[in-house]
Amino acid sequence: MKITKDLYQSSLTLLTDYYQFTMAYAYWKAGKAEEEAIFNLFFRKNPFQSGFTVAAGLDYIIDYCRNMTFADKDLAFLADMVDSNGRRVFEPGFIDYLREMTFSCDIDAVEEGEVVFPNMPLVRVRGPLIQCQLLETPLLNIINFQTLIATKASRIVLAANGDPVMEFGLRRAQGIDGALAASRASYIGGCASTSNVMAAKLFDIPVSGTHAHSWIMSFGSEIAAFEAYAETFPDNTILLVDTYDIVQGVKNAITVARKLRDSGKQLKGIRIDSGDLAYFSNLAREMLNRAGFPEVKIVASNDLDEHIITSLKMQEASIDIWGVGTKLVTAYEQPALGAVYKLSALKNQQGEWVPKIKLSQQSIKINIPGYHNVMRFMANGKAMADMIYLEGGKHGNTVTIIDPIDPTRRKKISVEHAETEILLKPIFAKGVKVYQRPSIHQIRERAQRRLAAFDKTHKRLINPHIYPVGLEAGLYEFRTSLVLKLKSLDNGD
Amino acid sequence: MKITKDLYQSSLTLLTDYYQFTMAYAYWKAGKAEEEAIFNLFFRKNPFQSGFTVAAGLDYIIDYCRNMTFADKDLAFLADMVDSNGRRVFEPGFIDYLREMTFSCDIDAVEEGEVVFPNMPLVRVRGPLIQCQLLETPLLNIINFQTLIATKASRIVLAANGDPVMEFGLRRAQGIDGALAASRASYIGGCASTSNVMAAKLFDIPVSGTHAHSWIMSFGSEIAAFEAYAETFPDNTILLVDTYDIVQGVKNAITVARKLRDSGKQLKGIRIDSGDLAYFSNLAREMLNRAGFPEVKIVASNDLDEHIITSLKMQEASIDIWGVGTKLVTAYEQPALGAVYKLSALKNQQGEWVPKIKLSQQSIKINIPGYHNVMRFMANGKAMADMIYLEGGKHGNTVTIIDPIDPTRRKKISVEHAETEILLKPIFAKGVKVYQRPSIHQIRERAQRRLAAFDKTHKRLINPHIYPVGLEAGLYEFRTSLVLKLKSLDNGD
Repeated sequence: MKITKDLYQSSLTLLTDYYQFTMAYAYWKAGKAEEEAIFNLFFRKNPFQSGFTVAAGLDYIIDYCRNMTFADKDLAFLADMVDSNGRRVFEPGFIDYLREMTFSCDIDAVEEGEVVFPNMPLVRVRGPLIQCQLLETPLLNIINFQTLIATKASRIVLAANGDPVMEFGLRRAQGIDGALAASRASYIGGCASTSNVMAAKLFDIPVSGTHAHSWIMSFGSEIAAFEAYAETFPDNTILLVDTYDIVQGVKNAITVARKLRDSGKQLKGIRIDSGDLAYFSNLAREMLNRAGFPEVKIVASNDLDEHIITSLKMQEASIDIWGVGTKLVTAYEQPALGAVYKLSALKNQQGEWVPKIKLSQQSIKINIPGYHNVMRFMANGKAMADMIYLEGGKHGNTVTIIDPIDPTRRKKISVEHAETEILLKPIFAKGVKVYQRPSIHQIRERAQRRLAAFDKTHKRLINPHIYPVGLEAGLYEFRTSLVLKLKSLDNGD
Repeated sequence: MKITKDLYQSSLTLLTDYYQFTMAYAYWKAGKAEEEAIFNLFFRKNPFQSGFTVAAGLDYIIDYCRNMTFADKDLAFLADMVDSNGRRVFEPGFIDYLREMTFSCDIDAVEEGEVVFPNMPLVRVRGPLIQCQLLETPLLNIINFQTLIATKASRIVLAANGDPVMEFGLRRAQGIDGALAASRASYIGGCASTSNVMAAKLFDIPVSGTHAHSWIMSFGSEIAAFEAYAETFPDNTILLVDTYDIVQGVKNAITVARKLRDSGKQLKGIRIDSGDLAYFSNLAREMLNRAGFPEVKIVASNDLDEHIITSLKMQEASIDIWGVGTKLVTAYEQPALGAVYKLSALKNQQGEWVPKIKLSQQSIKINIPGYHNVMRFMANGKAMADMIYLEGGKHGNTVTIIDPIDPTRRKKISVEHAETEILLKPIFAKGVKVYQRPSIHQIRERAQRRLAAFDKTHKRLINPHIYPVGLEAGLYEFRTSLVLKLKSLDNGD
């Protein structure tokens, strides 16, 4: 997938906040443009009160970075910007600097489909301050949304408990790419197909769909519409039965099913898109079974999400395939993941990393300073805990991890008996891609495999058991001392 | 603005649901592809419990329709699709039909920035059934989202009561176009600027932004960072004061304000992005005033929406400029507008329009049949009521409009004393654009002018007075009789 080349005409390098450019300019003026920095992208809370989050969006990021150059018309736009006094905002030298700028960062990131948690870096960017800064907004835009939707999809797929989930949210999605990226992330999260033909083509996702109410209404009668549809698609007919009256619609579908059987074919399914799905799916199932069509599937849709699917399952609704749209592709329950991107270290002129921290009235908004990474501890294939630790730091055979928000939550782990995995993988080294991009099918498969490694109590849809993630004790102490030191400082000095 | 040409590389004609293609194919097979149809795009409820909605998205639609042709690779993708038996889904003749297809519909629509209400058509498409059908999903995707955001923006701007509102939602928006289209719609709704540089360039929107916490953190002290910024932008310095401690931040900003004043310049503002905005804005105002800087503006941000802005205004917070992001660009409170697109009439072989209706278990889901339009009645420049009526229908000097959901809500209007305006304007006639596209600034101006024509009780943010919109009595009776007739029919015949 090459989003910028296949989908977008222009360079996306201007897809960032204006303050990134004013800061970039001011860094350049202050001689700080090339100072080496480390920024971490992380979120502070799982969305939807979920016990986990599924990372997605990296493939877009790779593409964005590989095309991070300024088109001439982008530079002309910046060069022509004037302030309220009519004076040009940026000096020509800065425009020249941007023209020559070549993406040269190290990027380490968790792979798409990985199960992730609050506070751990999903993406770590190391490179010239100016490039790190310009990347902030597009990285957040891409990762925030796709991670949000992959997580929502995985929850819906968990609720469907093995039944296929079809995504068809295009008409209610937030804009063109709000739909395309949502289809991609939904598939990563475990959906079986999308209705979006362009997403299917761009991302190699299975596509599905049959007909709408308008098909029925364009004929003189429902049965005529059903018959015409079955004639065109004898091997793949799913009939929408609720245009006029569901019971009559099911009767008409059975009539068509008999005709198909007479010609050696089989009606694939019926779809119910309104009304009480528990009541009507069971009624339809009974009618189909009594008529000798137990193999005809029932597809249900109408504002479904993981909670309604769970409720319908508990009511023993006879639904085989779930169609989800609005609630999935907009993450209706919580339409934004609040991931942030924070400076965590800056190299000084002696070549040493100086850890950086931002204070806040709200403790949850204080970042984790330093150059760090994440280690997952596993035992017998089961995930036990994740540890955020300083790169190059030393720790003994037993480590203690401490929850940064509630330091009374701690966990001791014997390193020598655990299987470990470092979650940040090298993606770019000095601007050169060193990562082999997996196919979307491999990513989807990874998400399922990784989710399987977590205890089911962490995957409970409501009030999940909290998976232990924390700072390695040394990093925790270091961060605390830094906060206390800063709070006692007069920053005016 | 030419979204497909300037932004998107490929044709967007595949940006539709797969079932539009399966239906299109089945229409083609059934010889119905060129039957003349009328579809209406409308929504059933104002979003956010608002008393009004602001239409947006038409400019994208115009562009979409003008480029509604299939690229060779799009056709190849469709031609290569196979069903579960490995057989091609579509016959070559159908692919050829699509290759030759030329957009030839009539489109009438309310203009962007128009104030609109439930049940009235926002877009009416008349043309070959197959084209109307393919257009369904992209029209909904575009209008649903931009109308949602323009409405949200207008509510936030109403709450700000004359203060400038800056949109900076890119980092939390739903994907790339989820951000770009949101910036556009926010400006239409009345925002003063966007932070999104690409949106500014594509749509000619004012851009704004200063610096982030990372700017401060990259220096040894806050005051050094402030001074360096003011040195680079002496005429446009807004300082973010909450990286470490807000009170100290304001003190440091005052120090910089003094230095700027010494060199004949003026600090433009400070920004507070966390903490209690009412408390700290008043404290900062007092500190700035006491120091002799009453002209320095205070910018506030942090998860603002119309409700929080209203609350801060009631608390007499000292905020001059409002920065809004997540809650605006995702329409957090209700992230989807549920507009639908329904077949309302089909021409028979005698050349007569046959009205079409869809029943539902839920009365609100029954559409309005026939070939209709919307008339707004005004008196002394104030909007009185909107009437949905059949094109070519006759009505006397007095009309009665009836709410389709609650038919006890009726309003009599004396036509001869009212100023009237027909809201659907011709956009395309037989595929040819007949509409002069206004600039985005004209659209934004229209939204403000149109909103001004509505009584302020309709614009109340909570529990608004309901503006009268209904069916002309004859259309109402016709629809009712059609529903009753269909309900008594055995659709199996």
